[in-house]
Amino acid sequence: MTLATPVIIVNFKAYETAIGENAVKLAKVCEKVAKETNTEIAVAVQTADIFRVSHEVNIPVLSQHIDDNSFGSYTGNVLAESVKVNGAQGTLLNHSEKRLRLDILEATVKRAKDIGLVTVVCANDPVAGDAIATFDPDFIAVEPPELIGGDMSVSTAKPEIVSDAVKKICNGTKCDKVLVGAGVKTTEDVKKAIELGAVGVLVASGITKAEDPEKALKDLVNGLK
Amino acid sequence: MTLATPVIIVNFKAYETAIGENAVKLAKVCEKVAKETNTEIAVAVQTADIFRVSHEVNIPVLSQHIDDNSFGSYTGNVLAESVKVNGAQGTLLNHSEKRLRLDILEATVKRAKDIGLVTVVCANDPVAGDAIATFDPDFIAVEPPELIGGDMSVSTAKPEIVSDAVKKICNGTKCDKVLVGAGVKTTEDVKKAIELGAVGVLVASGITKAEDPEKALKDLVNGLK
Amino acid sequence: MTLATPVIIVNFKAYETAIGENAVKLAKVCEKVAKETNTEIAVAVQTADIFRVSHEVNIPVLSQHIDDNSFGSYTGNVLAESVKVNGAQGTLLNHSEKRLRLDILEATVKRAKDIGLVTVVCANDPVAGDAIATFDPDFIAVEPPELIGGDMSVSTAKPEIVSDAVKKICNGTKCDKVLVGAGVKTTEDVKKAIELGAVGVLVASGITKAEDPEKALKDLVNGLK
Amino acid sequence: MTLATPVIIVNFKAYETAIGENAVKLAKVCEKVAKETNTEIAVAVQTADIFRVSHEVNIPVLSQHIDDNSFGSYTGNVLAESVKVNGAQGTLLNHSEKRLRLDILEATVKRAKDIGLVTVVCANDPVAGDAIATFDPDFIAVEPPELIGGDMSVSTAKPEIVSDAVKKICNGTKCDKVLVGAGVKTTEDVKKAIELGAVGVLVASGITKAEDPEKALKDLVNGLK
Repeated sequence: MTLATPVIIVNFKAYETAIGENAVKLAKVCEKVAKETNTEIAVAVQTADIFRVSHEVNIPVLSQHIDDNSFGSYTGNVLAESVKVNGAQGTLLNHSEKRLRLDILEATVKRAKDIGLVTVVCANDPVAGDAIATFDPDFIAVEPPELIGGDMSVSTAKPEIVSDAVKKICNGTKCDKVLVGAGVKTTEDVKKAIELGAVGVLVASGITKAEDPEKALKDLVNGLK
Repeated sequence: MTLATPVIIVNFKAYETAIGENAVKLAKVCEKVAKETNTEIAVAVQTADIFRVSHEVNIPVLSQHIDDNSFGSYTGNVLAESVKVNGAQGTLLNHSEKRLRLDILEATVKRAKDIGLVTVVCANDPVAGDAIATFDPDFIAVEPPELIGGDMSVSTAKPEIVSDAVKKICNGTKCDKVLVGAGVKTTEDVKKAIELGAVGVLVASGITKAEDPEKALKDLVNGLK
Repeated sequence: MTLATPVIIVNFKAYETAIGENAVKLAKVCEKVAKETNTEIAVAVQTADIFRVSHEVNIPVLSQHIDDNSFGSYTGNVLAESVKVNGAQGTLLNHSEKRLRLDILEATVKRAKDIGLVTVVCANDPVAGDAIATFDPDFIAVEPPELIGGDMSVSTAKPEIVSDAVKKICNGTKCDKVLVGAGVKTTEDVKKAIELGAVGVLVASGITKAEDPEKALKDLVNGLK
Repeated sequence: MTLATPVIIVNFKAYETAIGENAVKLAKVCEKVAKETNTEIAVAVQTADIFRVSHEVNIPVLSQHIDDNSFGSYTGNVLAESVKVNGAQGTLLNHSEKRLRLDILEATVKRAKDIGLVTVVCANDPVAGDAIATFDPDFIAVEPPELIGGDMSVSTAKPEIVSDAVKKICNGTKCDKVLVGAGVKTTEDVKKAIELGAVGVLVASGITKAEDPEKALKDLVNGLK
């Protein structure tokens, strides 16, 4: 199991507009756009929202993080199996707001793959992305932290980061692995990302804080075509 | 909102017998015993299980942990509001398997109280319990880490820890705040804990790994009478 | 062993003006002022500077942090005994730039006391200071993080924080335990802190970045009289 | 600046036999063997011991860890420049007892290189070693955590780990980068490690706890020849 490409992943973070019932509502908007435009759109929601969102929509739901522990005496960690049985198809890992130890990231990617969760691992730069590629996750999302939440997209402000990431992670050719994030908000941002070799984008506030999320999402989808 | 006392809190941890559908099943056993014996029994489940468990049973459901962040750009953290809108009435904090920084614990207890989540904060010893009492959580669960998961209960093996904790946390009198955990498995264990001034117990493997959880739980309830 | 009061503790942090040879130079300025004014002045230096500074000056040298581990297989941690045998008389703990888990802070204060290191534990607010008092360190330095490194001192900007901290930590009377920090730069800042019940101050950039550290330090000393 | 190969790095950890004056004594033994056998032997000591050890012996002294912060408002962290000006020629990083976040490891290797500290980064397995190679440290020490401190060396118990690590890290050829650790105690252990493509070993208790450290060290040196 994996995600089809090109893909748009919407990270709901802990935004008030994107938790609980709002998470379901926003996920339904994503589902609507996904169906109308025949595009792969996945949503990464608060752990506590995974069950209800995944039971209300028919698009891939991701966890925002899982821990590396297996079954047993672990309190307060997010068990991989737990998000899976509640409907998650995959998980983000190592987001800039939840960085992981290198050895734990390695172990967690392995665990996720072992039980069939799609892995989308974030990287702060192409070199980190290259290091992460060693663990062979399904996707690597390169997001320069200084651009996250800002008004400039990485593909517009620093296109060389995207092409360098693709080159490093795909070993000089092309591959279906590299996503880009940070500041992605417009059709043009997505278009450039795809031109530079990315197969999708990871977005957050651009959608969750949009006045009209449906329109904002369609703008992004247009960049994929 | 708070929990009635005396109370038994069952920590489902990440046990295979206590996640997903199994979490619902075990929570129903807890609900059955709670009703039959007219006892307050709460369950602390995996974050991803909060929604389904809280919608299937009518006993208090707790989160095993929440983070201190508010709404906003936080990925992979457990937002207090998120567990609340999904059905949690409260949360464990600072469990020996998820210890927190002192300043973060202070902030998290405050956040939980502000939005109406019952707080059950774990402490490794009476001195730590006394320090935690400064933050005024609803309950403080004293659990010597060396006894967790073992065969000896704290109230049997080290009764002085329980009475010392009660004395320190309740400032020399009695109060409805002190729970004890670690190794609690029998009627006698609970009985002693209550005699020593505790108002409840925090249990895990004694129930989640019991061949007959219903019987095991009733044994504990008998100790409360 | 402890520090005499009133006391000024200068935290050298990782300032370029306060490491290596510069650490020795600045510590000698502190020693000069201490002797000339007959005042207790201690310096908290980079771990790697403890040996050389403590062998060049005759004022108390503190570590900025120690870990809770004992002798044994621990790599990269700062062993309490290690700073002691190299000349430290005590240690800061739980600084806002190095916060600790509650249980680890408890254990570390205990370790430090067991081997005879003076403990100066930082707290972000009076409530945290009160919680920390449970562990009975030698000193508690209350430093609101939002004022650290700024131009307003806690005793000037928020005098109620100082008096509240003294009240809570000293149980309504007076005691030789409370230091204040954050923004302390002038004679007046120190004077107010002492009037409000503090027995000393914890300073950093006010001295390490001063054009004339000797003069800046004498200004602070004047506030103690 | 780098370390000559083959190299033996002795990690003093927090062993009672290897701190303070004992650190100087043991470092002198290492220096003696280094000179007599014309072998590169480096010692990784407690941060507080760097100054005195580096001023008493003429062999490379390493820090056991450094943090990623630069000059400035950082309390309790180990500044790269601070260990350097006190005599360290390099540093261990990411030891199994001090694992680092992937992004922080990347930044710290870069910082260390920028200021001229030799970097020896530990890895739990060949895959992690391969990921770490992306950051281009001077050396990568592969140490399976389950063998650290034990009686079986990695080169004897799991030779395939060593050869796999060399293959991955050196991209199929040979290179002067791979060290092995964990359980290394005998001439034979070292000999095998070198045969398998390693250029040195990282040892700890085998020397620090030896009844006769000089003899134990000479045994290891014999394996290099």
